Amino acid sequence: MKIAIIGYGNLGRGVENAVRLQPDMELVGVFTRRNPETVETAGAPVYSVADIDRFEIDVAVLCGGSATDLMHQGPEFAARFNVVDSFDTHAKIPEHFADMERVSRENDTLSMISTGWDPGLFSIQRLIAEAVLPQGETFTFWGKGVSQGHSDAVRRIEGVANAIQYTIPKEEALEAARAGRGQNLTTGDKHLRECFVVAEEGADLEKIREEIVTMPNYFSDYETIVNFITAEELARDHRGMPHGGIVLRRGETADGVNHVYEFGLDLDSNPQFTASVNVACARAVYRAYQEGTRGCVTMFDLPLAYLSPKSGEELRKELL
Amino acid sequence: MKIAIIGYGNLGRGVENAVRLQPDMELVGVFTRRNPETVETAGAPVYSVADIDRFEIDVAVLCGGSATDLMHQGPEFAARFNVVDSFDTHAKIPEHFADMERVSRENDTLSMISTGWDPGLFSIQRLIAEAVLPQGETFTFWGKGVSQGHSDAVRRIEGVANAIQYTIPKEEALEAARAGRGQNLTTGDKHLRECFVVAEEGADLEKIREEIVTMPNYFSDYETIVNFITAEELARDHRGMPHGGIVLRRGETADGVNHVYEFGLDLDSNPQFTASVNVACARAVYRAYQEGTRGCVTMFDLPLAYLSPKSGEELRKELL
Repeated sequence: MKIAIIGYGNLGRGVENAVRLQPDMELVGVFTRRNPETVETAGAPVYSVADIDRFEIDVAVLCGGSATDLMHQGPEFAARFNVVDSFDTHAKIPEHFADMERVSRENDTLSMISTGWDPGLFSIQRLIAEAVLPQGETFTFWGKGVSQGHSDAVRRIEGVANAIQYTIPKEEALEAARAGRGQNLTTGDKHLRECFVVAEEGADLEKIREEIVTMPNYFSDYETIVNFITAEELARDHRGMPHGGIVLRRGETADGVNHVYEFGLDLDSNPQFTASVNVACARAVYRAYQEGTRGCVTMFDLPLAYLSPKSGEELRKELL
Repeated sequence: MKIAIIGYGNLGRGVENAVRLQPDMELVGVFTRRNPETVETAGAPVYSVADIDRFEIDVAVLCGGSATDLMHQGPEFAARFNVVDSFDTHAKIPEHFADMERVSRENDTLSMISTGWDPGLFSIQRLIAEAVLPQGETFTFWGKGVSQGHSDAVRRIEGVANAIQYTIPKEEALEAARAGRGQNLTTGDKHLRECFVVAEEGADLEKIREEIVTMPNYFSDYETIVNFITAEELARDHRGMPHGGIVLRRGETADGVNHVYEFGLDLDSNPQFTASVNVACARAVYRAYQEGTRGCVTMFDLPLAYLSPKSGEELRKELL
């Protein structure tokens, strides 16, 4: 199947890489709004998005830089191709879904929104866990991973030259959730925040630390660790974009009979893994489209078999 | 939807319980080959299976006692109803699938085989993990849980009055698999076997221990711990049927960029949890049947949304 990448940042780069690992996919190219000559890929040809209609494309993976991009990009391209996106602004999912459903129906295409790991893989785990264990409680923990918003907030503090913030699940909160003592856990109880800060020369480190740990919304409700490091250390030890997390449901099927359903991801590169999910979903969209499915779907709506290049017979023999 | 239970052992009892926890299901009754008056349920009416055609049934959950039962029971009831089973003899799945597919097509019904957690939930995790991370290795660990076959093997030893055997994943093997050092792990490297044995009076304990740990196929390739306990301790501390396990895939998306996908279950009662999965799958069968799906499917083949009582809108809002 012929895959196109629309937009080329970290995610687009991840999709280019992920397509290369799949046996049944071919990359048509990267389509950009920038001058194609300024975009350096890992080998994929680059075209202007204005020329995209000249190409034969089975599924376009939308790699726009923000949720705002995707809300426009989505309907624009769903009118012409089958598309997959990783839209993740939770509150706007109903609106985006409605737009994509309408445009895809009108244009006889199929689109799948909010693919990736959260939303995406975490969502399907929440669905399965709740369907199987209707009496229980689901917890989501994020990390260890970089939070862009929190890193930016630290960078805005006077005297801070650069900074990165990691969100880390707290082991004791995970244990409490597994053991049925998780009822009142707040997001702050569940996560630790660790900052690595490069201070400007002569800055008052104690004042920076104080400003971070007391910052409302971002840090004041959390246990926060602040480490001061050099610019060289930041560049050397914090270049990756690791992330991950855990979805956990503890459910009861009879008095005192409990079950723990747990799903975890530990990712060296958030964009590379997200892209890998996007690409498997592109296969599902291609297959469902061939079978006549139209409109907008999510990972809840297509058979899992469609994610895999294997036949039903192979799946039953090798994986069941 | 109207659910029937065919066969009433631990699994049937679990299904009776699981149906009660679901908001949109009604239990028609338990159908048995035994004299209905000898079957004591937790409240469900009991009927002779000979009378089953008098009842209106949307989905029958087959709770036959063994794989042999299911190979006959499956086609027999798939000819009359939509059915769900938990067939788990891996080598015979293709044959059983072919039988069920033929009978269900001929009789305009829908059947779903091999539901539960392995096969079942573990299978779908293997599928997703492999589709997303095509370059990598998948590991399955079982336990901590009771192995019936191994418990029976110990019970057959001279001087053993009763025994139970737990299969336990080895923490160091799990760590090796997560860290990319799992390539050559054997089943024996991955699991520990722990036996709790009640010896007959005057039996030679050292001889029993020796016979267990050297038993070919069952124990000789494993690290095995043998504990001697009293009949009272066995009855008091080992009545539950706990089980669980872990499916783990480590995959690489670029040189040195690795991701760990991990799914784990920790179950107080294997039959109650298996039954809970069977019942969620019965809902999926009911929904797919309403939409026109016929023949035989597995958990790979239906949209996950069908497992849940929630609408697409609710799922997107609450779980995506």
